[in-house]
Amino acid sequence: MNRAVVNRHVVVRRVPRVAAEVLAGLASAGVSTVHEADGRRGALDPALRPIQTGARVAGSAVTVSCHPGDNLMIHAAVEVCAPGDLLVVTTTSPSTDGMVGELLAISLSARGVVGVVLDAGVRDVAELRAMGFPVWARAVSPRGTVKASPGSVNVPVVCGGQSIAAGDAVVADDDGVVVVPHSRANSVLSAARARLESETAKRARLAGGELGVDMYELRPLLDKLGVVYVDEAP
Amino acid sequence: MNRAVVNRHVVVRRVPRVAAEVLAGLASAGVSTVHEADGRRGALDPALRPIQTGARVAGSAVTVSCHPGDNLMIHAAVEVCAPGDLLVVTTTSPSTDGMVGELLAISLSARGVVGVVLDAGVRDVAELRAMGFPVWARAVSPRGTVKASPGSVNVPVVCGGQSIAAGDAVVADDDGVVVVPHSRANSVLSAARARLESETAKRARLAGGELGVDMYELRPLLDKLGVVYVDEAP
Amino acid sequence: MNRAVVNRHVVVRRVPRVAAEVLAGLASAGVSTVHEADGRRGALDPALRPIQTGARVAGSAVTVSCHPGDNLMIHAAVEVCAPGDLLVVTTTSPSTDGMVGELLAISLSARGVVGVVLDAGVRDVAELRAMGFPVWARAVSPRGTVKASPGSVNVPVVCGGQSIAAGDAVVADDDGVVVVPHSRANSVLSAARARLESETAKRARLAGGELGVDMYELRPLLDKLGVVYVDEAP
Amino acid sequence: MNRAVVNRHVVVRRVPRVAAEVLAGLASAGVSTVHEADGRRGALDPALRPIQTGARVAGSAVTVSCHPGDNLMIHAAVEVCAPGDLLVVTTTSPSTDGMVGELLAISLSARGVVGVVLDAGVRDVAELRAMGFPVWARAVSPRGTVKASPGSVNVPVVCGGQSIAAGDAVVADDDGVVVVPHSRANSVLSAARARLESETAKRARLAGGELGVDMYELRPLLDKLGVVYVDEAP
Amino acid sequence: MNRAVVNRHVVVRRVPRVAAEVLAGLASAGVSTVHEADGRRGALDPALRPIQTGARVAGSAVTVSCHPGDNLMIHAAVEVCAPGDLLVVTTTSPSTDGMVGELLAISLSARGVVGVVLDAGVRDVAELRAMGFPVWARAVSPRGTVKASPGSVNVPVVCGGQSIAAGDAVVADDDGVVVVPHSRANSVLSAARARLESETAKRARLAGGELGVDMYELRPLLDKLGVVYVDEAP
Amino acid sequence: MNRAVVNRHVVVRRVPRVAAEVLAGLASAGVSTVHEADGRRGALDPALRPIQTGARVAGSAVTVSCHPGDNLMIHAAVEVCAPGDLLVVTTTSPSTDGMVGELLAISLSARGVVGVVLDAGVRDVAELRAMGFPVWARAVSPRGTVKASPGSVNVPVVCGGQSIAAGDAVVADDDGVVVVPHSRANSVLSAARARLESETAKRARLAGGELGVDMYELRPLLDKLGVVYVDEAP
Repeated sequence: MNRAVVNRHVVVRRVPRVAAEVLAGLASAGVSTVHEADGRRGALDPALRPIQTGARVAGSAVTVSCHPGDNLMIHAAVEVCAPGDLLVVTTTSPSTDGMVGELLAISLSARGVVGVVLDAGVRDVAELRAMGFPVWARAVSPRGTVKASPGSVNVPVVCGGQSIAAGDAVVADDDGVVVVPHSRANSVLSAARARLESETAKRARLAGGELGVDMYELRPLLDKLGVVYVDEAP
Repeated sequence: MNRAVVNRHVVVRRVPRVAAEVLAGLASAGVSTVHEADGRRGALDPALRPIQTGARVAGSAVTVSCHPGDNLMIHAAVEVCAPGDLLVVTTTSPSTDGMVGELLAISLSARGVVGVVLDAGVRDVAELRAMGFPVWARAVSPRGTVKASPGSVNVPVVCGGQSIAAGDAVVADDDGVVVVPHSRANSVLSAARARLESETAKRARLAGGELGVDMYELRPLLDKLGVVYVDEAP
Repeated sequence: MNRAVVNRHVVVRRVPRVAAEVLAGLASAGVSTVHEADGRRGALDPALRPIQTGARVAGSAVTVSCHPGDNLMIHAAVEVCAPGDLLVVTTTSPSTDGMVGELLAISLSARGVVGVVLDAGVRDVAELRAMGFPVWARAVSPRGTVKASPGSVNVPVVCGGQSIAAGDAVVADDDGVVVVPHSRANSVLSAARARLESETAKRARLAGGELGVDMYELRPLLDKLGVVYVDEAP
Repeated sequence: MNRAVVNRHVVVRRVPRVAAEVLAGLASAGVSTVHEADGRRGALDPALRPIQTGARVAGSAVTVSCHPGDNLMIHAAVEVCAPGDLLVVTTTSPSTDGMVGELLAISLSARGVVGVVLDAGVRDVAELRAMGFPVWARAVSPRGTVKASPGSVNVPVVCGGQSIAAGDAVVADDDGVVVVPHSRANSVLSAARARLESETAKRARLAGGELGVDMYELRPLLDKLGVVYVDEAP
Repeated sequence: MNRAVVNRHVVVRRVPRVAAEVLAGLASAGVSTVHEADGRRGALDPALRPIQTGARVAGSAVTVSCHPGDNLMIHAAVEVCAPGDLLVVTTTSPSTDGMVGELLAISLSARGVVGVVLDAGVRDVAELRAMGFPVWARAVSPRGTVKASPGSVNVPVVCGGQSIAAGDAVVADDDGVVVVPHSRANSVLSAARARLESETAKRARLAGGELGVDMYELRPLLDKLGVVYVDEAP
Repeated sequence: MNRAVVNRHVVVRRVPRVAAEVLAGLASAGVSTVHEADGRRGALDPALRPIQTGARVAGSAVTVSCHPGDNLMIHAAVEVCAPGDLLVVTTTSPSTDGMVGELLAISLSARGVVGVVLDAGVRDVAELRAMGFPVWARAVSPRGTVKASPGSVNVPVVCGGQSIAAGDAVVADDDGVVVVPHSRANSVLSAARARLESETAKRARLAGGELGVDMYELRPLLDKLGVVYVDEAP
């Protein structure tokens, strides 16, 4: 019997974390800018929404794969979290059950975890908002879960339609969530900063009434694509 | 011809209400705690969301079954409502039309109704928020409804995937909605209170850094389930 | 080769705008009232939600049809917008990508556009809320778009399941979005005002405890439809 | 501690079955006719689809409530099934996992069960079609389930949005699934037969070119409702 | 009071039909080819699926707008149908109820109607398949409808996300449904035929092993877009 | 500027293929058995459905990542396909457009490709069924696509919620689709064969009337979990 098939449930203790200042830079740039800076890659399914407004965080991913309706492995994951981490939870089949609530949030806060992204449900949202502990989830649901089935921590998971590995940079704000692979975090931050700078100038020009079709020089493209200007509808 | 088949539309006047202090206790415990206390039963579909934040209510259910796109029976239901009741509305086919708006909310408030749960749509949400009248609904929709088709009041309905009978305790807050059958309301309140007490101690331990895997004694279970700890990903 | 088939991408410059005072009246009446006043027509899919609370606007529609994942034509549309217009964007296939963000909002604001309705996604929502620029969209998504494919401006589009032509009156608030054809804008405003007046009296009667079944004289209808009143469930 | 709260998982052995000839009559009438005959009640969510074409069955319901991703209780249910029963399976949270496959179908066939209705997933559909064992399900999914969590057999469940109790008559064919409460099965069969007879005559008249507006005498209704006939669009 | 607002329900008797040979040509070309030939316009939501396989029809649209859960106006529409027409049905709010069944299909067949497209549900699908009467619908549902609410016939409707006017050419097959405005039917047929001819040659070249990147001369485009060929993953 | 960020679009020519006899073995075992044999991993979203019945294939994955509404990269992928490969297509944002049709299927067949799995739409399904070319897709849609935007071939993609790398074994049949990482293909085949053997014996026992609760020895588990047998509902 093949060992790889049998030993499918592991908790991996070591996470290749992203430097705190890089995470701070990515959080400051925000999800939409980071997504552009990485060549429009890594955005999670927009169905994963924040339960609060105004939060903007970035952390090194600690990933958790759970059986649906079962949050046992989230409890196992807390131990391997370090300050600055962000917990990423998915289930092996789709589920909206409330896998994280106030007690887990207290425990995660005590470890310095900066937030949670769940491809599943969250509960105790009034308490979480009061605590200021940010969560992005597919659903808000009072349905609690059992602690009965095995799973894994810090193996690569698919969450919100994106592959996420332990140690990837995950950025989350009001626009949603984006993942940047650990190996690209630095270069994406540089690209994000360049992008932010160029946007400052653009912002002023557009506010002054300049048109995007002129600023981005889109008129030749429109013409080439066969877009015709007419005074009245044909 | 069988009478049960013919007389399908009834308004039942009497509702076996839950005692006010029990309802107050359930509202205070909150939806997620009540759901756990009843053995993880009774949570409505998380697609039914509050239109406001911070409301936390419980009431005896007055149930309404409507034709889609028609709120005639909600008008019929108002008369049988008493202070402390919570209106539960469903349609015989899925609908997102706005079946309850400001005028009905004023009328329900005048009867002492504490809120509405709709497996359908709500409208006039700005006015309802200003009034402080809480609503949980599947959709917000400006589409008003006609008053043309028969239905029933206080017959058992399925709302948000749960069976609800007249007089059941319905609890609703930011986490969603849960129903507790009338016969179990007292015992579920006792179980909820026991649960809340035990959580106070847990909260302090977790805030102090104790791990859930230790507090809940999950390590033997993880081991038995074959979860293996490793330093590096395999 | 047929010209109608070939020249499918046009930007129509002229828009038959609705008078500013009519738009102001429709905005003041609100979406749900306007929908009723127009014979319960024109409400867009409730899946198009506001990203803010409390906004209530009306504008003459400037319509944009885009390729999914491509916002080139929105840039082309800005030039034909005038103060008081409302931008209506749709895609030729369903898409949730963030087609409008802060830069476009700045540009649209500079033109006097009062808001955007998107049958697609929006991004930079924290910035848009801070600017007070109102948007109704199917999704919030950080996924930016390319500027590569042709489309049309001010041709009739289907947005949120409703046909919208350039110059139609579009009203949007917390209840959603409704479109009123340009030719009916005046008469619908009259009907909306009549409706608002009649509601003032109703509001007072219902607050005083009068029942809707009496006020609307629904008891004969309930009887005719065979709805039977009983004390106990059958 | 309250017993009703604690003992939540039961297997009820006795099922009040519907007579075989009544079930045969309901199956022969078909789902849509039965639904009409019962006053347009009891139709399950159309998302529950047959995996085969042409099957038309009716059985006394044996109900099963499972934890999502866990089919332990289906195994427990087989023992209480008798010839002519139809298995109705639901989960406490939404799930599409394949809870029934070839082996369970063989076992159910050996007990004389006539089919399965699942508010969840089915697998081995090629084998089930080859066996001629009919299934209606929300999804086809290869994801098998564990056997780890408790649930109940023959307690009332909500399946496809309808309440179903053990012993209710469940009818299923290409149109979907309908449930008739045990107490109404006889009267609904009578009403269904009356309906079938009246349709034979209608079929001939319509085939001969008679219009429904004449046959059902709808012209006065259309007139009363304000429907106006015009030659050209207004 | 404005007449346009009041008289909202009309049955328009005259339909500007498309010539039979044009319809035959469009049906023969098929939905996907027609969609391409019209500049990739007019495809209805893929959620509208055929209940049969192998049908390929085209007809002049007779449009029907119904209240959800009410098929009264379909009965009114039959009278204005002529041989070669195709019935297009939509509801003012989303609905999956079975609005067309065997009896209506018999009646429509007697009028020479070639099929039905429903942005709603269909029932009696076994009987419809046996009759060979083709239907495309959003759902199969046994839930029948009432005949109580007004609507319109042959006014422009939105069906499956596309605007359809009476007399437009509607083509439907296993790929779904496409609408071609009446004014473009001839030119689209010409374009479809040209397309079919060009595909015959392409089919042979591709079957012979020629690559699409060569046949369509895509290599320069790939190069210009920055697509790089490598032997191993980076 | 970082090269990893800039060069985001690549076509990787080399694919680490799975041996033909292993693929044949996996196809023969079928999707549901393979899923179990790999520890219940790798099943794609059940929303990806076959357009035909009875097909059962396995191939080495050639992966394609496309812009929504654009199939340029599928054309680029054909060249790197070899006999026995299976094409896996995804889009960077959700799309149901028909990205593969008859012409591409002819071209892929000419290369020996055994089938296509699309997290998007397919068209020309009548022709594909006639050719016997199997496809699994999220939608059937006549909406064709443009050839304008870059993407990648043989980079890791997420398709139907699962990570798939070039050279992974993909198995597809009437139950859906499962992916097995290249490194586990051999061991999973062994486990699948062991499973098939054990099922033969179980099949006979269950057909003979033995109960699953006895055969799997589930009675002690049910007892331990607190499941109580009663004669009547409590």
